[in-house]
Amino acid sequence: MGLSEFDLINRYFGQGGALNQLRTDVELGIGDDAAIVNVPVGQSLVMSLDTMVSGVHFPENTPAEDIAYKALAANLSDMAAMAAEPNWLLLGLTLPQADETWLESFSRGLSQLANQYGLALIGGDTTHGALTVSVQVNGLVPRGQALRRSGACPGDLIYVSGQLGDAGLGLKLALAELDIDLEPQRRQYFLQRLNRPTPRLELGLALRGLASAAIDVSDGLLADLGHILKASGVGASINLEQLPMVDEVRDLSELWWRVPLTAGDDYELCFTLPADKQVAFELAIQDVECPCTCIGQIEAAPGLSLLLDGDNIDSENLKGYLHFD
Amino acid sequence: MGLSEFDLINRYFGQGGALNQLRTDVELGIGDDAAIVNVPVGQSLVMSLDTMVSGVHFPENTPAEDIAYKALAANLSDMAAMAAEPNWLLLGLTLPQADETWLESFSRGLSQLANQYGLALIGGDTTHGALTVSVQVNGLVPRGQALRRSGACPGDLIYVSGQLGDAGLGLKLALAELDIDLEPQRRQYFLQRLNRPTPRLELGLALRGLASAAIDVSDGLLADLGHILKASGVGASINLEQLPMVDEVRDLSELWWRVPLTAGDDYELCFTLPADKQVAFELAIQDVECPCTCIGQIEAAPGLSLLLDGDNIDSENLKGYLHFD
Repeated sequence: MGLSEFDLINRYFGQGGALNQLRTDVELGIGDDAAIVNVPVGQSLVMSLDTMVSGVHFPENTPAEDIAYKALAANLSDMAAMAAEPNWLLLGLTLPQADETWLESFSRGLSQLANQYGLALIGGDTTHGALTVSVQVNGLVPRGQALRRSGACPGDLIYVSGQLGDAGLGLKLALAELDIDLEPQRRQYFLQRLNRPTPRLELGLALRGLASAAIDVSDGLLADLGHILKASGVGASINLEQLPMVDEVRDLSELWWRVPLTAGDDYELCFTLPADKQVAFELAIQDVECPCTCIGQIEAAPGLSLLLDGDNIDSENLKGYLHFD
Repeated sequence: MGLSEFDLINRYFGQGGALNQLRTDVELGIGDDAAIVNVPVGQSLVMSLDTMVSGVHFPENTPAEDIAYKALAANLSDMAAMAAEPNWLLLGLTLPQADETWLESFSRGLSQLANQYGLALIGGDTTHGALTVSVQVNGLVPRGQALRRSGACPGDLIYVSGQLGDAGLGLKLALAELDIDLEPQRRQYFLQRLNRPTPRLELGLALRGLASAAIDVSDGLLADLGHILKASGVGASINLEQLPMVDEVRDLSELWWRVPLTAGDDYELCFTLPADKQVAFELAIQDVECPCTCIGQIEAAPGLSLLLDGDNIDSENLKGYLHFD
């Protein structure tokens, strides 16, 4: 990029910018060939990288600050699912051009969420090309206390946080694929849930030592719970009537279970809890501002059973319920 | 991506693949929401991220294995410049489609270089879109021993490794912008230097405790040495006749200093050495298979003087020498 573009990018992401939190564990931040950081003794480092492509992961008309917010939130959600506390972030930003208004908006969205959790931007790269955002987030967890997908056991209870299907409904609104009558503030609610998902970081920390397995719901409950079942070598039964949904999604779901079960982007946590940890769990989440709902349990036999008011919905019916293409 | 694409990508980058080195410092590799790794006590973690875009950072007809090799090499070069030993890698790969031949070739190029240095692929993301490769590389360095850009002092000698301008000449050949008569094996040499740069990792390690500053030459010597000068608050003088160049580049450079001075992609190291460390340095690099050449020295006064056979080439002449656009 030319000098003026370089200056522009430096203004928003360089040293001294809103994203360069002073953290004592950062020995050298942005501005050298690489960053130098220190992991405290007794802590493991948890690392993830997510890429979001314009027109694929977000509609092309998405505001820059929402793109930034969501790209970071998706990564922080991975940290939550591992029970890690995020600390450092690297950003790979590919842009068609360095537009000041866009960059200002993008950095505002990014710093808003980064600052909320005290994350420092310590490195990255800005390049020319089709709009693509790669965020690499790092977090800390006391050694041995990270949550994995592989620990679920028969009899464990299955929980999800928040509500399912909000982002799925939001996407249908954003793409004008859904014709329902909504008050402006409800419409705004669903778009916010799509564009500004809440990473369940406090919940993730509260689950340390309690949950047996966890994942974040980025690809839809069925797919993501499926990852836990596969990694743990178990099955599960889910009671559909217990799925946490707001009224609008519930109204849809009678006919259209696809939204709460298979729409992605909710970034809620799905986790399993040994039955004897229930009391400790209720205590641990008292101060976490996020409802958690038990939706079923882990079974020894492989496969996922969906129950609706006690009736097993077999795979043939399921296809109809889910409106699979 | 659809299931078959997922399977395909999993075959090349998933668990058990050629890229998943067994390393005792990797507690959990690919296959969960994030990876879990452990940094040994007394070591700092060095982190960098580079993005390469098709048609911008490499010609669109570049073979997939060269794209992978170069994307990783560029990051490893950053590790070399910090005197870090690389260990873990995350890959963000955006692809127009999941083509098996392309993926096989890409993973071959990546694993060839990764395995050479015992790097483990521990995470990443594969998405649909215009071909873009983000590599996030991590390395270890004993605390306090990383090399930075900011330590150069007046009187320090300035060195570069290898030869300058090879990749620049290679790019001109790749783009058919240069009409010179070359034997096939010399042509191949320059294309290799462009597509498969050698990260100077052994040299970087040998410079620990000796060099006062270091950077890798990715944007051309003038620009990258300029970063050292700016970060260190010093100036420098360079003797052009001492620049290490192969004959073909030297023949060009009489008229066309732009290639060795401003063409990027050489990924050699440029470093500064206190004069009293010269003997220890010569000893330290005895076993490093990479020549190092002294090309000038750090000056107290800011600015960069280019000398040719003792004559100062002032900035007006310089423009002519460099053929600036």
